[in-house]
Amino acid sequence: MSLTSPDLSSADLEAAATFLRAHSEVLITSHVNTDGDGIAGGLAMVGLLRQFGVRGRVLLQDVPADGYAYLEGWDDIDAVTETTVGQRGNAIVLDCPNYTRIGNVLELLTADAVVLNVDHHHDNERFGAINLVSAGVCSTCEMIYHLALFMGLEIGPTIAEQLYTGILFDTGGFRYSLTTPTSLEVGADLVRRGARLDLIADRLYNNSTYAEVKLIGRAIDSMLLHHEGRVATMSLTHEQMQQGDSEAAVNYGLRIKGVEVTALFKEESAGHYRISMRSRADVDVSAVAGMFGGGGHSRAAGARQDGSLEEVRNRIVAALEQVLP
Amino acid sequence: MSLTSPDLSSADLEAAATFLRAHSEVLITSHVNTDGDGIAGGLAMVGLLRQFGVRGRVLLQDVPADGYAYLEGWDDIDAVTETTVGQRGNAIVLDCPNYTRIGNVLELLTADAVVLNVDHHHDNERFGAINLVSAGVCSTCEMIYHLALFMGLEIGPTIAEQLYTGILFDTGGFRYSLTTPTSLEVGADLVRRGARLDLIADRLYNNSTYAEVKLIGRAIDSMLLHHEGRVATMSLTHEQMQQGDSEAAVNYGLRIKGVEVTALFKEESAGHYRISMRSRADVDVSAVAGMFGGGGHSRAAGARQDGSLEEVRNRIVAALEQVLP
Repeated sequence: MSLTSPDLSSADLEAAATFLRAHSEVLITSHVNTDGDGIAGGLAMVGLLRQFGVRGRVLLQDVPADGYAYLEGWDDIDAVTETTVGQRGNAIVLDCPNYTRIGNVLELLTADAVVLNVDHHHDNERFGAINLVSAGVCSTCEMIYHLALFMGLEIGPTIAEQLYTGILFDTGGFRYSLTTPTSLEVGADLVRRGARLDLIADRLYNNSTYAEVKLIGRAIDSMLLHHEGRVATMSLTHEQMQQGDSEAAVNYGLRIKGVEVTALFKEESAGHYRISMRSRADVDVSAVAGMFGGGGHSRAAGARQDGSLEEVRNRIVAALEQVLP
Repeated sequence: MSLTSPDLSSADLEAAATFLRAHSEVLITSHVNTDGDGIAGGLAMVGLLRQFGVRGRVLLQDVPADGYAYLEGWDDIDAVTETTVGQRGNAIVLDCPNYTRIGNVLELLTADAVVLNVDHHHDNERFGAINLVSAGVCSTCEMIYHLALFMGLEIGPTIAEQLYTGILFDTGGFRYSLTTPTSLEVGADLVRRGARLDLIADRLYNNSTYAEVKLIGRAIDSMLLHHEGRVATMSLTHEQMQQGDSEAAVNYGLRIKGVEVTALFKEESAGHYRISMRSRADVDVSAVAGMFGGGGHSRAAGARQDGSLEEVRNRIVAALEQVLP
């Protein structure tokens, strides 16, 4: 099977290939607090570069979440520390809309470093010397898949597992609207090449701690509906939040038929709330976040507010009424 | 694109096509308490038959869950009632391993009724005059897709949405091990033909009532770990169970890294518990269900037990120790 992307030009693929073949060592990085697509993409890139003798090293500002420990090469990912010395003259920047979002990895790069920018964010600033950028591709891992085939590299079971992980992560398991037919076909090809789709899904989605699942329960217990069931809100106290990562909880409001926006109020410290909002396709929660000094995307945004839980909730719920269609 | 299944023979497809073309009216049914694959497959079949002038009618023992109300034709599905008179001489039986599982629809069929059996269960009893049966296909809707292409029928946006729904339902969103590369490619083709993958996933997975999501919270609140975190149990009281369908709650135990088996104890009436068990790939919970007079599949099984919650839980947890690898 030879699957090509309708969204990547041969000229860009050729420029990226030339860059990769021109080096003996390459630094590979991604945005601060990177995710499954950036981590898996970085590891896949290391494996692909190795096939023609280039040593790739993944360096990030932060240590990645250990939910990706099943990926081959995960132990070799390094976070930048005081001992990460030396200035590099080149880098592959993955899944990152602008150059400064790589965080303190910037300090390891010379001012004239040559950068290959591989990304699928629609607001990518094309900051690289070479830009392999398309918002029509579901994930950076899918871009790497197309690049690998273009270069005639081998995608064996290990790299297939890494690339499938990134595609699954960024498409929410082929559920988000950025998923294209090509994403599904690339997934099929990666399964044929040895990716175990059931095991990858299990590792990616069934990977919480007991405390994190308990937090979901606490958030659900606090759930209230507003505006005739079109808005669901939840809250977690400062004490509850000490139990683990509560990020997954916010999505449970959208499980309910008819709910268009959900908000989770997390008490970061007494009287200080961090608000996470999520919406279905038609409601822009970044507009509401903006009213309160926050920001984000149309379907996922956040802000901070001070006051009692009731005060903060009333403020946000009132503002949400303005953006409901 | 012309996608064929490696698991269906031309002879079987030809026999099915001949059957379909030989009638002016066909009864379409599925197993009692049918699911997304059976419902969507039945509706797709109606649309396909209409293309060559055959009138198909979906008749089931039970009224289907209204979570599928977004599917074109849903209003025309009928449950068998006293007024569903008349004996039919033919039927298409979808997604059903044996003939008796169609329930009281049997009473509408003559003793010599000609049956087209379309199914992907490994234990299908090949009870039809024509059997389009393969355990290598992920869903009955995928089988119908292959049959439609074989017959040169048109899969437009409406039928694409129906077939995609059944594939998504039976593969758990392309996550279960029965998902093949062909399943993903058929999914891609259906999206190209007009299925909106994001909307279908939203309708299929974000379709709970407020009370049902609250029940998940209650079940999580009750969660205990046993056997060094390899078993998670939850319980719902009789009073809590009055709030809605609690079936989804049992899966939350498996969200936790390290948990291999999860059991939910549902108090059907005072001192009477219905136990639902789920496992990851390597643990056979049907063996434990069997010890207590129940049954099911390797990864999803159930039983009933009487006693206090503590007694019932202790019994099951002790038995589960014997099947942990």
